Amino acid sequence: MTAPLHEAGTGTPDTQQGMRRRNLSRVMHTIAADGPMSRAAVASRIGLTRAAVSTLVDELVRAGLLEELGPERPGRVGRPGSALAVSGSGPAGVGAEIGVDHLATCVVDLRGEVRFRAERHVSNRGRAPEPVIADLTALVRQVIDEAGREGLWPAGLAVAVPGLVARDSLTVVRAPNLEWHDTDLGELLPAHPPVTVDNEANLGALAELWLGERAPNDFVHVSAEIGIGAAVVVDGRLLRGTRGFAGELGHVPVHPEGPPCACGGQGCLEQFAGEEAVLRAAGLEPGEGRVGMLAERAADGDQRVHKALREAGTAMGIALTGTVNLLDPQSVVLGGALSRLAPWLLPSLEAELDRRTAGPACGITVSRLGPEGPLLGAAHYVVRAVLDDPTGIAQNV
Amino acid sequence: MTAPLHEAGTGTPDTQQGMRRRNLSRVMHTIAADGPMSRAAVASRIGLTRAAVSTLVDELVRAGLLEELGPERPGRVGRPGSALAVSGSGPAGVGAEIGVDHLATCVVDLRGEVRFRAERHVSNRGRAPEPVIADLTALVRQVIDEAGREGLWPAGLAVAVPGLVARDSLTVVRAPNLEWHDTDLGELLPAHPPVTVDNEANLGALAELWLGERAPNDFVHVSAEIGIGAAVVVDGRLLRGTRGFAGELGHVPVHPEGPPCACGGQGCLEQFAGEEAVLRAAGLEPGEGRVGMLAERAADGDQRVHKALREAGTAMGIALTGTVNLLDPQSVVLGGALSRLAPWLLPSLEAELDRRTAGPACGITVSRLGPEGPLLGAAHYVVRAVLDDPTGIAQNV
Repeated sequence: MTAPLHEAGTGTPDTQQGMRRRNLSRVMHTIAADGPMSRAAVASRIGLTRAAVSTLVDELVRAGLLEELGPERPGRVGRPGSALAVSGSGPAGVGAEIGVDHLATCVVDLRGEVRFRAERHVSNRGRAPEPVIADLTALVRQVIDEAGREGLWPAGLAVAVPGLVARDSLTVVRAPNLEWHDTDLGELLPAHPPVTVDNEANLGALAELWLGERAPNDFVHVSAEIGIGAAVVVDGRLLRGTRGFAGELGHVPVHPEGPPCACGGQGCLEQFAGEEAVLRAAGLEPGEGRVGMLAERAADGDQRVHKALREAGTAMGIALTGTVNLLDPQSVVLGGALSRLAPWLLPSLEAELDRRTAGPACGITVSRLGPEGPLLGAAHYVVRAVLDDPTGIAQNV
Repeated sequence: MTAPLHEAGTGTPDTQQGMRRRNLSRVMHTIAADGPMSRAAVASRIGLTRAAVSTLVDELVRAGLLEELGPERPGRVGRPGSALAVSGSGPAGVGAEIGVDHLATCVVDLRGEVRFRAERHVSNRGRAPEPVIADLTALVRQVIDEAGREGLWPAGLAVAVPGLVARDSLTVVRAPNLEWHDTDLGELLPAHPPVTVDNEANLGALAELWLGERAPNDFVHVSAEIGIGAAVVVDGRLLRGTRGFAGELGHVPVHPEGPPCACGGQGCLEQFAGEEAVLRAAGLEPGEGRVGMLAERAADGDQRVHKALREAGTAMGIALTGTVNLLDPQSVVLGGALSRLAPWLLPSLEAELDRRTAGPACGITVSRLGPEGPLLGAAHYVVRAVLDDPTGIAQNV
């Protein structure tokens, strides 16, 4: 295979300015990932000359995105260089999450540290968007104020919602468990900081990609609050779908003649492994905090709960067999609320997948981020945007 | 959504040389897609100055990749510029296809025109790789010799095979209908020109992307020779999967308790819509040219064939419902041998997809390239590699 393998076509033109912007981004990403480090170390890492890196670094220091920590500790060979670190003040990412029974927000600095977090338990099921967003905005303002007192300012706000979000928009097309339809959050949220709205499974998957331990570059992230969602990451990029609706694992047909589903389909995975179906099979009423109750009863050895989760795992294994055959991911990651139930879902899920897939089946792992994934993904989404285009953000100051 | 949306991290460093290489590629792609055109038109199209474009064009003319057609026809405003066209001689792409009952090859010039084509009908089922590749090599040599007499030389050879090819390798891991396993074609094919081996569904999808009428950038390409394969194109890029095995639509479970499948699974799509299953349902024996026979009988109004194809369409609709829910493609394209049976497969397939998918289902189209897709995709794969890295190929001369 000696022929080049670029399958994509053209793109935006390459200019000196575009090149400078991309190299500034490379410096930021390198120091964010592996810093503190000297100019020389950055230069050798990204393959540019030390002079070129110094010019880029000076600009980033002036913009307040990098800081000099002073001479590196002695004992190293050669003239000591000043270690560079990503700034712990200045622009920060604000993440927010609208859950069916909670609201949460956090501020993450450019170093990736969660500096402030606030949460409020409130049942949002069937509640109108206006009061929910008003509550969320109050919570967000609170953490932004706290962050401001430590020299951090919001470079952007990303909001995770349990529903389908139209691609490149702020519109929640369908969030069945909130009972929201075609809701434009852009009209309800403050104009500043700049807002992004995304599906919670997408942001959970990005958190896994950016923060997970040994995160692969190709994986399917399965998550659930009430419904079953998934997100597909390919070559380190989220696959969003034409309309932004990719990842609807909950509506993959598992038993095509099975019970009708609210989506219009029949025998969808959600009818066998969705929270409501599992609670019913376990003899529990639907309601708040039921995933926790399932986990507790399962841990106590409740046989009916074990059976319900075993059958849900089997259904998930069937849907994931199709997914794995279509996408050939490196692994499947169980995240979100599901991760708490993994010990009882995994055995039947893995057995089904092994039995049905040719060749070595892909690995299944459980997210360490668990239910925090979407909120962390939201805040880091903004932080990554700053690292990706440091001059863009500096110009906004 | 004002925050930048780059989710990918760093990459290779940006250098003057890399920038020049990418801009040379943009000039080639622009003229290949929309030429002949003047230097000024190229400059305005790709957003570089006329001076910068002239330097790039001069280099490409010297390398024999572009040619000057002389002054543009009069009647245009301003000083007439010399129209530039992609060269009709020089480097060319050679495609080859190993089918279960045929071998084919063709030469495509940089303008995208098929200049030579050769085909041989031969039953390759169960035949050892060595004689198959010897036959294929003879056929390839024949078209390369013919092309050489018109000033074309092979920049590369891409081979389409009906099986799984390990990513970034020349190894056919599994081609059930040839009965090949772990066959390294690199050992059997000549060392020159440089060789690429790929799955026929992948190359058919790339042909659709590059040559199809109004081809979308996000689609699932379903194709079949004997098995049912698919390829997924996202944002104009082929999704290959971690091991190169993505697109195994034929092994998506449709009725999970259905008949066992050779893949180790149960109730896979191939058990309901694969050629063997359809022939059996239609009362025909398996054998060469059976898809043609099915199409003829269906056109003659054979009710048993109609029923067999209707049921196959239903099964495909179920598998594609899961696919569409996972990937949210802009459309599904029926290609390969399947495209001939589309009139009888489509009604039940579309009905199933409409019934089961929420929101407006994605469109289904039939490939105009039909069974020629993989072979054309193979030759164009090489042509695109030249357009993507024109200096790389010039250095090889």
